Amino acid sequence: MNQLEAAKKGITTNEMREAARQEHLDAKKLMRLMAKGEIIITKNLNHRNVKILAVGTGTRVKVNANIGSSKDVCSTEGELEKLKAALDAGADAVMDLSTGGDIAKIRGKILKNCPVPLGTVPVYQTAVEVMEKKGAMKKMTADDLFRTIEEHAAEGVDFVTVHCGINRDSVSALMSQGRLLDVVSRGGTMLAAWILKNDKENPLYSDFDRLCDIAAKYDMTLSLGDGMRPGCLADATDKPQITELITLGTLAKRALEKSVQVMIEGPGHVPLNEIEENIQLEKKLCSNAPFYVLGPVVTDIAPGYDHITSAIGGAIAASSGADFLCYVTPAEHLKLPDAEDVKQGVMVTRIAAHAADIAKGHPGAKKWDNEMAKARKALDWEKQLKLAIDPPLAKKVRESSPPQAEDTCTMCGDLCAIKELKSVINEK
Amino acid sequence: MNQLEAAKKGITTNEMREAARQEHLDAKKLMRLMAKGEIIITKNLNHRNVKILAVGTGTRVKVNANIGSSKDVCSTEGELEKLKAALDAGADAVMDLSTGGDIAKIRGKILKNCPVPLGTVPVYQTAVEVMEKKGAMKKMTADDLFRTIEEHAAEGVDFVTVHCGINRDSVSALMSQGRLLDVVSRGGTMLAAWILKNDKENPLYSDFDRLCDIAAKYDMTLSLGDGMRPGCLADATDKPQITELITLGTLAKRALEKSVQVMIEGPGHVPLNEIEENIQLEKKLCSNAPFYVLGPVVTDIAPGYDHITSAIGGAIAASSGADFLCYVTPAEHLKLPDAEDVKQGVMVTRIAAHAADIAKGHPGAKKWDNEMAKARKALDWEKQLKLAIDPPLAKKVRESSPPQAEDTCTMCGDLCAIKELKSVINEK
Repeated sequence: MNQLEAAKKGITTNEMREAARQEHLDAKKLMRLMAKGEIIITKNLNHRNVKILAVGTGTRVKVNANIGSSKDVCSTEGELEKLKAALDAGADAVMDLSTGGDIAKIRGKILKNCPVPLGTVPVYQTAVEVMEKKGAMKKMTADDLFRTIEEHAAEGVDFVTVHCGINRDSVSALMSQGRLLDVVSRGGTMLAAWILKNDKENPLYSDFDRLCDIAAKYDMTLSLGDGMRPGCLADATDKPQITELITLGTLAKRALEKSVQVMIEGPGHVPLNEIEENIQLEKKLCSNAPFYVLGPVVTDIAPGYDHITSAIGGAIAASSGADFLCYVTPAEHLKLPDAEDVKQGVMVTRIAAHAADIAKGHPGAKKWDNEMAKARKALDWEKQLKLAIDPPLAKKVRESSPPQAEDTCTMCGDLCAIKELKSVINEK
Repeated sequence: MNQLEAAKKGITTNEMREAARQEHLDAKKLMRLMAKGEIIITKNLNHRNVKILAVGTGTRVKVNANIGSSKDVCSTEGELEKLKAALDAGADAVMDLSTGGDIAKIRGKILKNCPVPLGTVPVYQTAVEVMEKKGAMKKMTADDLFRTIEEHAAEGVDFVTVHCGINRDSVSALMSQGRLLDVVSRGGTMLAAWILKNDKENPLYSDFDRLCDIAAKYDMTLSLGDGMRPGCLADATDKPQITELITLGTLAKRALEKSVQVMIEGPGHVPLNEIEENIQLEKKLCSNAPFYVLGPVVTDIAPGYDHITSAIGGAIAASSGADFLCYVTPAEHLKLPDAEDVKQGVMVTRIAAHAADIAKGHPGAKKWDNEMAKARKALDWEKQLKLAIDPPLAKKVRESSPPQAEDTCTMCGDLCAIKELKSVINEK
């Protein structure tokens, strides 16, 4: 019996109890929200010793780090280094998006070393293999696709991105729309191109039941991909994107009926003033299924700083109700990220998630900030550094500029406002 | 006749016409908004060849960089290096917050090399001089304070932070409140301590007319400081802060009557969900006077990343109506920033400001993003790098990981979604 089957029967599993403990939620309440598809626990039956991770209504906002090779940059060692960087920085989940080298071998190594839930995008492997064996992605069959998905599921992958909403409808919406930047999702493009070239329906859509059967068997979460996510601000919240979202909402309902856990993927590039409406739309159209957003980046003009454009968008998205933030690194739009990019991406996305948890009043979120404020008032530098989200960095920055008075910093020195007012108040 | 006097008489000056041109606004409309105190042009009569800078209703969101020495770190050369970093990164204005070394000399050098409006906080110099000469800040007189302010004005400083709202009322609100982190504004603390120790009213409040006379004479903008700005999330939007803001609103009105240009300074440390209400409160209580915010940082726990906590808060503040963002650097809460910190601070704050301009529909803001989207669709890498907010950085990142196929990047290589879909659509 998988988690969702249990929830639907009113059974509280050990996994639910652990998730409830982490989230300061009542276990029965969490179970009921799972039964409605509002919370997922993404844990493949074959992924042993994986950390329990709940995503959805009322839970702490989670952070995912994308790693993975490309044809240009591929080494198993490099990927394990990135995995370590993501875990050290505090990622809640990791996705292996490898498209280069021995994809299956890299995934195997990552899975073995990954104590947090792991996600993949199986169509990448299918595409690379089909192109190698058959010379063109066009020749992919439904069996090719489902074979890879079941391979990932059997190995223990906890969640897979599946672009089920790329179908004749959304592709037709795309073609009639005249977008500034067409499609920027790799998986989305692969399937849209397949539909257009073969004049056939996407098997992930037409054979959605087959997909659900695989997922249910391994308790693998389906992350319904947003292949039509906007690739620039001008394309945000448009017909292709919303057409796909409507489809995803329908499929989420079907998955729930088949006891398959689902989350919905979201944009992308979105102007700041459209983020909240994007979240509200997803919650409405997908019956409050957990929303997993990439960014959103709030301007197109900052390659090299897209971890920051994305931290801005992610904080707003999460405070508006997005449940799961996929990081964007400083390398986005320029190159494959390396371990340092991964670290930066996780850190700033954790900051965005935490700021949103505070905004939403998530139990316990503010405590950390209050402890820091108290350490600042006490001029207790050791404690301030220890409480920092990145203690080694904070220590390094402070030590790079040592103050004359040990209880101050070199910004203000003796003119430290906290120190001065404290002495005045103590006199009173 | 200063700018505000002209505006009140219905005269459109050259400065107003230049500002209107920059802002894609009608010059007469800008003049009328100036007459109401909703837009300022911050330009001291004695600051020759300074760039015209309008701040307020309907204008592009502006970015300020704080530089300046401290007792621990002071060199004129170092400050000129930071000034250059701020200007190269695109700061719209700079503040010299020096408190160490020969403060007047450093300011003189900065003023000479500063083509954008320069701001200062005169009370810092007064405090340092009074402590040197009289042994205690407590012994400062009103004349000491106004003498420094007039010195800065006569030299050509364009705007000064003056903590006029630190008065018996706000200090009493502070003492009765029991804050987690008291006061974190240096100037605010100096004046609050002076009030408490002398049991007298702050001359900047009681002699506000004298301050206005100096400002009007040199057309120097008064930036009404928020000495009670919260220093941690827990203290945000509380009694001392709002008590001070009410006073600042009253003083802004008096300044307008005396033809003195004014902006209002704002927090600080604010939870994400309280930012919009902070902006709305300022606009209401201060009759839409331009709002100049520091950050706001949206969590206390990220020293080393406070340029990012602040970019998140700044983007939300600016899209909610804040007009002018004071940057926060990665050094905040740890040390005095160096030139690299200054660069980072300006860049991320420009990103926040630009994202807000797009959200507010500022004329022309979206054009830059659309050009970038077109360059991405065209796989025109040269143009993408040129359009980047930081072209040298974008180029460096791209060149650090050269792709095999020149029209792609190492993230996707041949699997580039844009490239693939373009070829499919071209076939159709």
